[in-house]
Amino acid sequence: MRTVSEHRAAVAALLPRSPVETRPLLGALGLVLAEDLRSPIALPPFDNSAMDGFAVRSVDVACATERDPVRLPVAEDIPAGRTDSPPLLPGTAHRIMTGAAVPPGADTVVPVEHTGGYAGAAVRIDRPAAPGAHVRRAGEDTAAGAVLLAAGTVLGAAQLGLAAAVGLPTVPVYRPVSVLVLSTGSELVAPGEALRHGQIYESNGTMLAAAVTEAGGVAEQLRFVPDDVPEFLARLAMRFAAGAPDLLLTSGGVSAGAFEVVKDALADRGVEFIRVAMQPGGPQGAGRLVGLGPDSAEVSVVTLPGNPVSSQVSFEVFVRPALRAAMGHPRPDRPVVRVPLGESLRSPAGKRQFRRGTLDAVAGTVRTVGGPGSHLLSALARADCLIALDGERGEHREGEDVEVWLLER
Amino acid sequence: MRTVSEHRAAVAALLPRSPVETRPLLGALGLVLAEDLRSPIALPPFDNSAMDGFAVRSVDVACATERDPVRLPVAEDIPAGRTDSPPLLPGTAHRIMTGAAVPPGADTVVPVEHTGGYAGAAVRIDRPAAPGAHVRRAGEDTAAGAVLLAAGTVLGAAQLGLAAAVGLPTVPVYRPVSVLVLSTGSELVAPGEALRHGQIYESNGTMLAAAVTEAGGVAEQLRFVPDDVPEFLARLAMRFAAGAPDLLLTSGGVSAGAFEVVKDALADRGVEFIRVAMQPGGPQGAGRLVGLGPDSAEVSVVTLPGNPVSSQVSFEVFVRPALRAAMGHPRPDRPVVRVPLGESLRSPAGKRQFRRGTLDAVAGTVRTVGGPGSHLLSALARADCLIALDGERGEHREGEDVEVWLLER
Repeated sequence: MRTVSEHRAAVAALLPRSPVETRPLLGALGLVLAEDLRSPIALPPFDNSAMDGFAVRSVDVACATERDPVRLPVAEDIPAGRTDSPPLLPGTAHRIMTGAAVPPGADTVVPVEHTGGYAGAAVRIDRPAAPGAHVRRAGEDTAAGAVLLAAGTVLGAAQLGLAAAVGLPTVPVYRPVSVLVLSTGSELVAPGEALRHGQIYESNGTMLAAAVTEAGGVAEQLRFVPDDVPEFLARLAMRFAAGAPDLLLTSGGVSAGAFEVVKDALADRGVEFIRVAMQPGGPQGAGRLVGLGPDSAEVSVVTLPGNPVSSQVSFEVFVRPALRAAMGHPRPDRPVVRVPLGESLRSPAGKRQFRRGTLDAVAGTVRTVGGPGSHLLSALARADCLIALDGERGEHREGEDVEVWLLER
Repeated sequence: MRTVSEHRAAVAALLPRSPVETRPLLGALGLVLAEDLRSPIALPPFDNSAMDGFAVRSVDVACATERDPVRLPVAEDIPAGRTDSPPLLPGTAHRIMTGAAVPPGADTVVPVEHTGGYAGAAVRIDRPAAPGAHVRRAGEDTAAGAVLLAAGTVLGAAQLGLAAAVGLPTVPVYRPVSVLVLSTGSELVAPGEALRHGQIYESNGTMLAAAVTEAGGVAEQLRFVPDDVPEFLARLAMRFAAGAPDLLLTSGGVSAGAFEVVKDALADRGVEFIRVAMQPGGPQGAGRLVGLGPDSAEVSVVTLPGNPVSSQVSFEVFVRPALRAAMGHPRPDRPVVRVPLGESLRSPAGKRQFRRGTLDAVAGTVRTVGGPGSHLLSALARADCLIALDGERGEHREGEDVEVWLLER
């Protein structure tokens, strides 16, 4: 029997770091920068005005007072975007707008609020201006060649804005991992269709595809297949002919029953089926599938158990961290905190048990929602965390600190 | 001069609750449920086996021991998905798989691990089985008609999985808000092109479109326009002819300069331009634009200042919470915590100042990254929080608790 850590490592080994690809900025939102991003230019690229006002020489207004203001003839209008550099002659001013280049010869900007008005020919300035005031220096934010963002940075709005500001139309990121999701089970019926006795609605495909998407991967859902080995293999081979995914993720058909389609189909093809010391989610499988992919390529496979809660908890424990690590995410795991239990609990000895929980922010405790049964999907949907109970002691007393994985939405 | 709260309310009033639309499950990921979701069926829909094993009558195995096991003839095989209901006769067993319907007449399941083997005709059972053991009762997870998920629930993988499990192919959600992003400024050049003196790369469009997407909205970026009122209006009218967005979001052209294209174009058309007691981001505008939309429809408009940091901070303070509230999000605001300052700071008296910060988890403090200048975009890109300084006191001492908005990625 494998420990949770051992199987986490086995799954992680199936998902190496994703290749680097160059993407336009908005297509890189939420992805991870694969290389240090260096600035090709200084930012700001040139000295520019922080205010709407007048570019002057500070010496020309050094003695200005309200009683004895200085009047300077206004020689030029410099709106933002003016691309020539009209020099400022001593004893004159240029009207300048926020963001416009400070003209050669000027060393300060007098904001329009500090002037006594502008009649079109001359401006009245009634106080001194310190050299450099209201001037943003070239390179003050970033020097040319400086590292703007380190490899491993998650790209959000501000980071993409910065890349745009230094003129980069694209960024190198780790490619999102492609995951083919396939559920198995002869009892499954698609939502929206009629249910006969003994049948249930297929939910793992939707749940896993959504979870892959939330984790930053690209999910493709294959329509579920019955417990039929030839049909399972044929469906996969047909899909693989169009190109193999980075990961095949199945649910169901891995247990000890008489009709275990995934196990029966893949056990001789490179996938190892084992039991993990956890509850729910004991039966697991992982490996590299050979002989079905195009050009005999190997396809990484993780096979999850079929009970919905087992499937989703297994995804959280094994697949999500491996997917996010493959995409370079600096924090592949869920945030983990230790919180006192709001109730006493028992867990199976020798196993790691993952219970569905809710945090009580007022009491500062965590409680279970629903029982340990792996069919209790509505409790999972109400949970905001997983309570990861340590398997060495089967008894957990109220008030005892336990490990809690925060499920954020 | 408006307070931050007053302008937040003005912007929020422009974005009423978004209409409800019905979406397929995977298309609803991350959106908010608009109505209570009731289960059309019980879950599980029928009594079913929690294990692979044998369905029996508990009375038939009540006296079984290892020394004196009970042998029961196996009458039927019930794989998951079998849709008929073969009754169990007293003194017999049906082989049953996990998830299969427990047959009429059986009241317990003996897991295969608790049997002494099955030779094809009879099974040897060597211990008693309690009534109801390893049987998942119909309705144990959810009763038919019960509220599965309350209106206002954010739909993640588990919630969508639950909807699928009760057979719902679609869910009613608040429609994502559509936002048209338009930057203005004659100094702007697209990333990837050559920069002349006095020009800068356009970054607000990318940054705001990414921020809208992160907030759950649907962003459309119009190519930026120069500081030219007729061109600005023509560009908008042309785009509006194809259908108006829920929100027009502009940046630039709202200050006190001589060439303020957004203000000049929209001030007489229903948009109010005011100053907010904050730094950065003092000049703001908001209103309902009349006379440009198709069929004289009004279009909600928020006009942000053009400096990149001002623009992004204004988005965080005014637009993001309003967008998320319109989409029904139960937590429209960023998580807010109070953290001791790791340094002493000054802020402008009478204004709310938003500084870019980083949390020091070891010291348990927050420090600024970069100065207060609204052009310091690289500091914004390194920040993991905004420090919201109270404008009543301009002095903030090291160790003093300040309000911190957590920017998560």
